[in-house]
Amino acid sequence: MAKAKAATAATRMIYYFGKDLTEGRGLGKDLLGGKGANLAEMTGIGLPVPPGFTITTGVCAQYYQSGRRLPDGMMDAVQKNVRMLEKELDKVFGDDRHPLLVSVRSGAAVSMPGMMNTILNLGLTDTSVVGLANATSNERFAYDAYRRLINMFGDVVMGVDHQVFEACFSRIKRSCNAASDTDVPTEGLRKLCEEYKEIYRKHTGEPFPQDPMRQLELAIEAVFRSWNTERAVKYREVEGIRGLLGTAVNVQSMVFGNMGDDSGTGVGFTRNPTTGENKFYGEFLVNAQGEDVVAGIRTPTSVDEMPKWNRSIYRQLLEVKTTLENHYRDMQDIEYTIERGKLYMLQTRTGKRTGMAAVKIACDMVREGLIDEEKATLRIPAGDLTQLLLPGFDPEAKKTAEVLTKGLAASPGSAVGKLAFTAAEAVHRTQAGEKVLLVRRETSPEDIDGMHCATGILTSTGGRTSHAAVVAVGWGRCCVAGAGEIIIDEKARKIRVNGKVFTHNDTLSLDGSTGEVMAGEVATTTPKLSGDFAKVMKWADKYRTLNIRTNADTPQDAQRARDFGAEGIGLCRTEHMFFEEDRITPMREMILAETREAREAALAKLLPFQREDFIGIFTAMKGLPVTIRLLDPPLHEFLPHDAKSQAEVAQVLGVKPSKVKERVTQLHEANPMLGHRGCRLSVTYPEILVMQVTAIVQATIACKRKKIDAHPEIMIPLIGTAAELRLLRDLTEKTIAQVKQAEGYTGDLHILIGTMIEIPRAALTADDVAQYADFFSFGTNDLTQMTFGYSRDDVNSFLPDYLKEESQILHADPFQTLDTGGVGQLVEMGVERGRKTRSDLKVGICGEHGGDPASINFCHKVGLNYVSCSPFRVPIARLAAAQAALRNRKP
Amino acid sequence: MAKAKAATAATRMIYYFGKDLTEGRGLGKDLLGGKGANLAEMTGIGLPVPPGFTITTGVCAQYYQSGRRLPDGMMDAVQKNVRMLEKELDKVFGDDRHPLLVSVRSGAAVSMPGMMNTILNLGLTDTSVVGLANATSNERFAYDAYRRLINMFGDVVMGVDHQVFEACFSRIKRSCNAASDTDVPTEGLRKLCEEYKEIYRKHTGEPFPQDPMRQLELAIEAVFRSWNTERAVKYREVEGIRGLLGTAVNVQSMVFGNMGDDSGTGVGFTRNPTTGENKFYGEFLVNAQGEDVVAGIRTPTSVDEMPKWNRSIYRQLLEVKTTLENHYRDMQDIEYTIERGKLYMLQTRTGKRTGMAAVKIACDMVREGLIDEEKATLRIPAGDLTQLLLPGFDPEAKKTAEVLTKGLAASPGSAVGKLAFTAAEAVHRTQAGEKVLLVRRETSPEDIDGMHCATGILTSTGGRTSHAAVVAVGWGRCCVAGAGEIIIDEKARKIRVNGKVFTHNDTLSLDGSTGEVMAGEVATTTPKLSGDFAKVMKWADKYRTLNIRTNADTPQDAQRARDFGAEGIGLCRTEHMFFEEDRITPMREMILAETREAREAALAKLLPFQREDFIGIFTAMKGLPVTIRLLDPPLHEFLPHDAKSQAEVAQVLGVKPSKVKERVTQLHEANPMLGHRGCRLSVTYPEILVMQVTAIVQATIACKRKKIDAHPEIMIPLIGTAAELRLLRDLTEKTIAQVKQAEGYTGDLHILIGTMIEIPRAALTADDVAQYADFFSFGTNDLTQMTFGYSRDDVNSFLPDYLKEESQILHADPFQTLDTGGVGQLVEMGVERGRKTRSDLKVGICGEHGGDPASINFCHKVGLNYVSCSPFRVPIARLAAAQAALRNRKP
Repeated sequence: MAKAKAATAATRMIYYFGKDLTEGRGLGKDLLGGKGANLAEMTGIGLPVPPGFTITTGVCAQYYQSGRRLPDGMMDAVQKNVRMLEKELDKVFGDDRHPLLVSVRSGAAVSMPGMMNTILNLGLTDTSVVGLANATSNERFAYDAYRRLINMFGDVVMGVDHQVFEACFSRIKRSCNAASDTDVPTEGLRKLCEEYKEIYRKHTGEPFPQDPMRQLELAIEAVFRSWNTERAVKYREVEGIRGLLGTAVNVQSMVFGNMGDDSGTGVGFTRNPTTGENKFYGEFLVNAQGEDVVAGIRTPTSVDEMPKWNRSIYRQLLEVKTTLENHYRDMQDIEYTIERGKLYMLQTRTGKRTGMAAVKIACDMVREGLIDEEKATLRIPAGDLTQLLLPGFDPEAKKTAEVLTKGLAASPGSAVGKLAFTAAEAVHRTQAGEKVLLVRRETSPEDIDGMHCATGILTSTGGRTSHAAVVAVGWGRCCVAGAGEIIIDEKARKIRVNGKVFTHNDTLSLDGSTGEVMAGEVATTTPKLSGDFAKVMKWADKYRTLNIRTNADTPQDAQRARDFGAEGIGLCRTEHMFFEEDRITPMREMILAETREAREAALAKLLPFQREDFIGIFTAMKGLPVTIRLLDPPLHEFLPHDAKSQAEVAQVLGVKPSKVKERVTQLHEANPMLGHRGCRLSVTYPEILVMQVTAIVQATIACKRKKIDAHPEIMIPLIGTAAELRLLRDLTEKTIAQVKQAEGYTGDLHILIGTMIEIPRAALTADDVAQYADFFSFGTNDLTQMTFGYSRDDVNSFLPDYLKEESQILHADPFQTLDTGGVGQLVEMGVERGRKTRSDLKVGICGEHGGDPASINFCHKVGLNYVSCSPFRVPIARLAAAQAALRNRKP
Repeated sequence: MAKAKAATAATRMIYYFGKDLTEGRGLGKDLLGGKGANLAEMTGIGLPVPPGFTITTGVCAQYYQSGRRLPDGMMDAVQKNVRMLEKELDKVFGDDRHPLLVSVRSGAAVSMPGMMNTILNLGLTDTSVVGLANATSNERFAYDAYRRLINMFGDVVMGVDHQVFEACFSRIKRSCNAASDTDVPTEGLRKLCEEYKEIYRKHTGEPFPQDPMRQLELAIEAVFRSWNTERAVKYREVEGIRGLLGTAVNVQSMVFGNMGDDSGTGVGFTRNPTTGENKFYGEFLVNAQGEDVVAGIRTPTSVDEMPKWNRSIYRQLLEVKTTLENHYRDMQDIEYTIERGKLYMLQTRTGKRTGMAAVKIACDMVREGLIDEEKATLRIPAGDLTQLLLPGFDPEAKKTAEVLTKGLAASPGSAVGKLAFTAAEAVHRTQAGEKVLLVRRETSPEDIDGMHCATGILTSTGGRTSHAAVVAVGWGRCCVAGAGEIIIDEKARKIRVNGKVFTHNDTLSLDGSTGEVMAGEVATTTPKLSGDFAKVMKWADKYRTLNIRTNADTPQDAQRARDFGAEGIGLCRTEHMFFEEDRITPMREMILAETREAREAALAKLLPFQREDFIGIFTAMKGLPVTIRLLDPPLHEFLPHDAKSQAEVAQVLGVKPSKVKERVTQLHEANPMLGHRGCRLSVTYPEILVMQVTAIVQATIACKRKKIDAHPEIMIPLIGTAAELRLLRDLTEKTIAQVKQAEGYTGDLHILIGTMIEIPRAALTADDVAQYADFFSFGTNDLTQMTFGYSRDDVNSFLPDYLKEESQILHADPFQTLDTGGVGQLVEMGVERGRKTRSDLKVGICGEHGGDPASINFCHKVGLNYVSCSPFRVPIARLAAAQAALRNRKP
């Protein structure tokens, strides 16, 4: 049935929405775009929407398929719909008495703020401008609308430089002695229209079209063209938006917010998108067109002030809020216009929100009976919880921080960094390892790259709905906007704020939750969680079937992860334990040793450190399993590579500097990633494994004797063949037995022995490998490196090109989101074959992907027992696991 | 039936062979060892074999399974068989009148010359030595036999240092004024026996056993022990011998070749193992024990001289040759002894032979009707053809070469290298990149490592059947043995030959086919093939179904490969074309360019070179397909890494040295193997692909216009995703069309576009990738690197440990022989999935494995269309492909 509907829809190009006919309702945004679908919905549920029609996304696809040509018959259909509009509104397109004016807007299935072009007041010509003046009894308004059309049409449709129109306007304003646009008299605007038409003719080679249908045709094509502009493509790239047909075009009858002081325009959210508070939230401007708010040119008024201006409209908006939320059962982001005291809804869409707001709104809506727990659990984007979990500023440190100024709290979180003044600079310095704040008067889509890599964004103009704010909230990036006291000198690379100067080399701290801009680096702290967050976690734990573990190498990290709900350690890396001052020396002694005996002597010095480390971690994780990975990196990582440090090492160890150098040379590898590391170290130097296992077993026994329940699981890394694991498992078991005997411990320690599956060959031969493994843990970082043949350290030379929409080679960075098509096959194979040999095999994942919601969904589907991720991502993983369980639930 | 037999066999420990009872015939060498099985066979077909019995390899396995303990009941069975021997020979073990003496020899399923211990004359005691003296009427002989037993038993069974016995013998000789062993009178030998017994007692703490059954028990155990000595393990490791149960023990009644001048001993081959000539070949010693020949201590006489000594025996041997060849239908390697004019056969086994001999013997045996063509095709070890294909010395260069001396032509081929005087030195210097000859007085199993890595082996003593010769022939390594004019000073690391001195730093040249030792480096040349070789190739081409291509980058290589029978080029690497003097400069200019335009300008300079290269190769391969791989290595490989060369490059290109350095730094990669290379270069720099494809198409058109049939196939390397290939195939097709248009060529060029499958992900997603590929070529070098996570450049730090028998992690170097268990799965998957999408997909392999017989067998089984290998390996691949087809033939 749905299919048949879609099939019919595919052949149809246009859907009308109006008082008596809402053709597109329920057809969805893939066909009509988000805006078009919502206009049809809103019309359908009786909200006051100016009538219009939507040209489908399919037409856009046809446009590109046929080499950028509008499909045959499309304009006939447009004309038919224009006639319907004329009839409904009792106006005529291009008429000299009651002219119909329309807006033409883009609207893809996914919202892309600021990315697509819009044309307003379309239908005005030399003839109909007179009609508009007559109909509104406002000649000034008519010519103001006309000059806006010519400007916008010239700029957006024909590519005439906006600055040329601006310069002309400035000239006229000067000649009229007008301080602002609104001071220009009618005659000035009329003259402006004439000059604008001349500019248009001069730059396009043809006169401004006087046939409104021709205007409409050109505008529609311009919308289609805007789908593939560089900035639109870039936005989709950064946002990871793929697979859309194109944009729809919405042609809608105009309403005017700039018809005087009883008119206005506004944008808003049905609930606070930052905090989630259930209160209508937004900004409006009296006597203004809608674009003025979004563009951040005039500073708007909070909607809280609206009752003072027009209580009835405010009350109507609150009713709209209820109607919309009851219909969509979610928080909405709306645009509206008031024309001469009458409210018109221009747009609604699901509102973007911070992680904190997402949690609160979901919990509130459950309490309000709008949605149930499952829907609430599914609705919170798991990744956005980062915003709640990231460190904020230490309250003590903030007490003494020097607050330079306060802007708008545009996007929460904390950010500390040096100042970058262009997007390019931000990108460049971030790549060089610096943490930077992007400081701009205002941001535009051209700045996307720089905004993405900066730790925070600071602007001196624009409101909470400006480009910077909207984009930053979407990403969960900290942003302070409209900090007007800051004067930015981009060329000199410095800012001045209340008499103080800060250069690109100075550090500032931003508090995105208060809008404060502070001097220097203010200390940050770990956030505390409670209330709604705890409720969401409770729901998550109720639905998820995956266990969540953490990657932690220290008792501190272990404790933090436990606090976040980790159910064990999935990856405890032991190599980090060798880098501390008092350990690196015996480690280096071991590496420089020439005999097994000398190596064993050096290892004996390391043993007590390792044992104490493990005791600390077992104590923190009391009762929960701790998967300990044996030494993994190549030995050269522990030796210095410059001559000076080598000489120092030689002195400390009492050997010749040449010997250190020689060993470094000997250990040098062309491709260390594929070299002598992981279990290969234990094959050639079994004494390293023996020392580590000894430390683990001694620590376990020490804990047991202190009545601390220790559950170590020994993980042997980089296994590529079953034979390696056979050999090393054997040695591990022998060592366990020996230590138990030496310690006089007779109880069973229940130490599991397993392996990481991170070499493609291990996944392919998992049935063999599983003979010697109590558990598998997929090391998807290395598995991704080898399956793709990408070195993580080197991939940046080509990965950006691979993620571009033009090439569409990769849909996501495979190191962030598990490549289910390739690497995922190996994971699935590993699970299936491993369990074929050993049905009770415990299987987990400990790569970065363990904290990525999309990857967690995959892990759930292939039947892993647990995912392991960094402590801060544990709550994200819990929620993502629940969402995976709900989404993949058998009906 | 066979199974039931084996099952019975498994429970039985001993099999007797003798005149009336040959229990083990047909049971095979896995159970009886090669020697035991052949003794049973020879006895069965009526050859004169001294009776005896064989203890199975299974008993050896039991010995190790039960912790080095002889199985219960074994000695009872031994005793029973000894009684049968006593009865057949009318002698008694330990008797004082007619004592039975036996030899105890090892014998595994695979022959391991010189590796296992042997004890002769067992059964002599203070009592039976008198019996032997009586029975032989030769007291001197009896005591000589006794002192040999005590010495051998002390050394081999009890581990008494051989030198201690030697020193004692020397003392006795001096006291008797004897120049050689044979000059020592009976009294001296009797005294020697007393002193030997005293040495034995002193070193072992117990008297020399006077119970012959006790002697036998200890000897049997010693044979079992010798299975796992370090040298035996090492030999199996080098030879890749795996999966054997253990060694059998052969207890055989003694016959004596040292009973006077009517006695003797010899070894031989039924045909010449070096040339294949159908003529009995070998050496013998009059009045000597068998071990004297093999050990290379006394220089033996050619068997051609035997008729002068005893025409009847010689005739009998020729009859034995015929009997054996008619029975085994293969060339045999035999050992025999003549005791007082009577011939006894002690051993037969399939003879090792050179590649040349293998070809001739196979062809001769077909002509003689002994075997058919298929058996002949299967019998020639394909890898051994190397010996026929490797360069020999240039005849012109040899005319003027200074021949220092002439030794025995022990193993054919040519070898040029500096002199290494110990195995360790040979290993060390080879690893450091030198080519060395191993120069030793004689070689022993301890030298195996050094022999294996040396380019050739030169000894000053020993014959054609000495350790050095036998081992070298087996490996196809060039060897000149017994060059007695060479005086070796191992300590001073020099040799003196006819008054000239050569140190470890001097180079010599060895001709293994003539025995010549020449000063300096003599030029080598390509061998010409004909006659029997051509016949074998004809058979191979008749049976094989795989096509054979070659890896060639130059017209010269292409021509050579055609001469060897290549049916196309499977891999033409284009990067090699950029390293020549006149090309590297524009290449570097391209790499240093900062804009696409500048890159294109530099590439335009490279275009004519590439085009001419391709014209040359197409011309050489006229009519045969040429698979051209687009640029593969990372760009930094084309820039110098030291400051001096960088400055030179900067000067040539007219840029600042800092710029070159900066670019080198920028291009540096942590893991270049997994970095910005292969098709990734074409994604980021499409202009490189465009230039290369342009050159290919221009060259093709130029050839077609000269009526040369050119068949290029464009291969895009390092594909990991279908999207990469889609993008680059598209660009390739566009470029082909553009060049055709620009050249005004309207015909169809039939250029295939395909990819290398060398990234695991490409194999996993082969069904997707195949959408855009006309062919796949498995790049198994890189595929092995990534599937195992082994960097080929770094693997030597651990691979030797992985190949050790103790660890048994890998059974072969996966870069030499395709790992069918892991990498092979990906190959199979790639073929299957690729063909699922595109049933006519052409699939080949172009890694090193394409020339490896075992890997070729796998390629045949998984249904590849072709294998591609280096020119010299083409004949090997042809034969291996035929063998694969015959072996895997459906019944």
